[in-house]
Amino acid sequence: MRLATRAQGDPDGELLVVSADGRRCLAAGARWPNLLAAITRWDAAEPALRALDARLAAGEGAPLDAAELRAPLPRTWQWLDGSAFAVHAQLMQIAFGTQPIESDKPLMYQGMSDCFYGPTEPVPFSDEALGIDFEGEFGVVVDAVPMGTDAAAALPHIRLLVQINDWSLRALAVREKNTGFGFVQAKPACSMAPFAITPDELGAHWRDGRVCLDLGVDWNGRRFGQANGREMAFGFHELVAHAAATRNLVAGTVIGSGTVTNADYARVGSSCITERRAIEMIAGGKPATPFMAFGDRVRMEACLPGGGAPFGAIDQLVTKA
Amino acid sequence: MRLATRAQGDPDGELLVVSADGRRCLAAGARWPNLLAAITRWDAAEPALRALDARLAAGEGAPLDAAELRAPLPRTWQWLDGSAFAVHAQLMQIAFGTQPIESDKPLMYQGMSDCFYGPTEPVPFSDEALGIDFEGEFGVVVDAVPMGTDAAAALPHIRLLVQINDWSLRALAVREKNTGFGFVQAKPACSMAPFAITPDELGAHWRDGRVCLDLGVDWNGRRFGQANGREMAFGFHELVAHAAATRNLVAGTVIGSGTVTNADYARVGSSCITERRAIEMIAGGKPATPFMAFGDRVRMEACLPGGGAPFGAIDQLVTKA
Repeated sequence: MRLATRAQGDPDGELLVVSADGRRCLAAGARWPNLLAAITRWDAAEPALRALDARLAAGEGAPLDAAELRAPLPRTWQWLDGSAFAVHAQLMQIAFGTQPIESDKPLMYQGMSDCFYGPTEPVPFSDEALGIDFEGEFGVVVDAVPMGTDAAAALPHIRLLVQINDWSLRALAVREKNTGFGFVQAKPACSMAPFAITPDELGAHWRDGRVCLDLGVDWNGRRFGQANGREMAFGFHELVAHAAATRNLVAGTVIGSGTVTNADYARVGSSCITERRAIEMIAGGKPATPFMAFGDRVRMEACLPGGGAPFGAIDQLVTKA
Repeated sequence: MRLATRAQGDPDGELLVVSADGRRCLAAGARWPNLLAAITRWDAAEPALRALDARLAAGEGAPLDAAELRAPLPRTWQWLDGSAFAVHAQLMQIAFGTQPIESDKPLMYQGMSDCFYGPTEPVPFSDEALGIDFEGEFGVVVDAVPMGTDAAAALPHIRLLVQINDWSLRALAVREKNTGFGFVQAKPACSMAPFAITPDELGAHWRDGRVCLDLGVDWNGRRFGQANGREMAFGFHELVAHAAATRNLVAGTVIGSGTVTNADYARVGSSCITERRAIEMIAGGKPATPFMAFGDRVRMEACLPGGGAPFGAIDQLVTKA
């Protein structure tokens, strides 16, 4: 089942159920006005939304206007972003000139959750000198997870999967990392692809708590990366358990994978610019690729091997604030 | 003006205006059902709430039942905690055995905002071995602050002041700080004192963006600290500007001072246990004071020099989850 959110003048938008081909929709209605309300009482919401999905499968529904779509969760109570791809962490240490992080536990910070940009909204930044970078990643949306839930028990709390661009300002990141307090200025609002999907939508490509799809990333119309989500050192269920170790996770919490990176990056490319710069540093001593400029576009779309983009695409313009 | 939130079966509770002596209240009513709704449209809400405050001053209102009070903001969209007392940062480096942080900018991390415990709620933790500690601090609540707002322009966005206990799990903090990603497991939900107050309530004790009051902290009935809020290296307006450098701050964002600490800690004591342990390490080579045990209580109350506690008191029991 695919869910989306339509703009209608409210901060949370209007919840839609979308047909498998992404072309038609039915509004979820007054009882489930938005996705945050639905995920808060998912056990009751899911059957109602599945019933609408069945009607869509039978041919009902109105045409979906992609231009009206916002992030499936335009805001939520909590966003915890992991960094679960080990090769990404190694390359970032090279790019940032920082020490290796000794840890047998996931890396995770809390980021801003009061705004997720929609898939085609222009994204404003104040200055190109901030080192504007994209980070293509996957995420999960959980219902309420009690404190102390272990990884096995966390898996069924993963109700929806999402695709995210975690916008990053690299000129501010090293200082913030060196404080030990994590990223505030270096991590403004993220973007989401239009469709939040139930895990069953991916069939065998949702495996071991990982989204095993290639994430195609295009920068100004040129292919930049197509790494696969399967190489996470920790599955999403392990990230959820890590996050829930000392807190109850509120329903609607989004947990991110961190930048999708593969060991075979020479072949598949990267999902963020900083990684490519690190690879250039390894090869030639210094980075060659600049960060983004105003007017640049980035497109991100995860594809099934047989075709089809279950999350839809992020396609955004970087603008001057 | 003092505001409080009464439990009534809803996650956001019911907004109350409270008399200056803290004994009577009037419900804000259906238009301003909770504080998050009011701060979101503060320019419209404030006159309505001030009108109720005038009626309270004239003797109206029902008795306030302190047992019904929750945190003034039981949940909000964003909580950014600073560490603005320079002596606190220095003592924490000694306690944690970490390197000094070189920075001319404030230290700040994003913490969980989907739950603030009320002033007398028991607070559950899974294990005493986590190093259960309190952190007495002050905080501000802002209305919507546009990205790029400077410190001078940030000051009038500070609409309310609050008093916070930032619960901390010290056994988990050093690892998280060393990752550079900030605190997730080490910082579970915080608590708030019962009253959020407008800055004018403090008169001259709200000065240079600082709450210039002694924060009395009692652990199991014995005075532990009474440091004054005036010694922040950065005022709250500077913390707000730091937070807003690259993001719009959503209305209802709470920004914290970090643990209240004074240079004269030998006389005034501390607002968290870890600091006392660092002072013991300086004096005798090793810490002597243990962290909190199940069944312990901590009480925090900021007092005006002439008497009176404008925020009310936090008084909580630590329990086994």
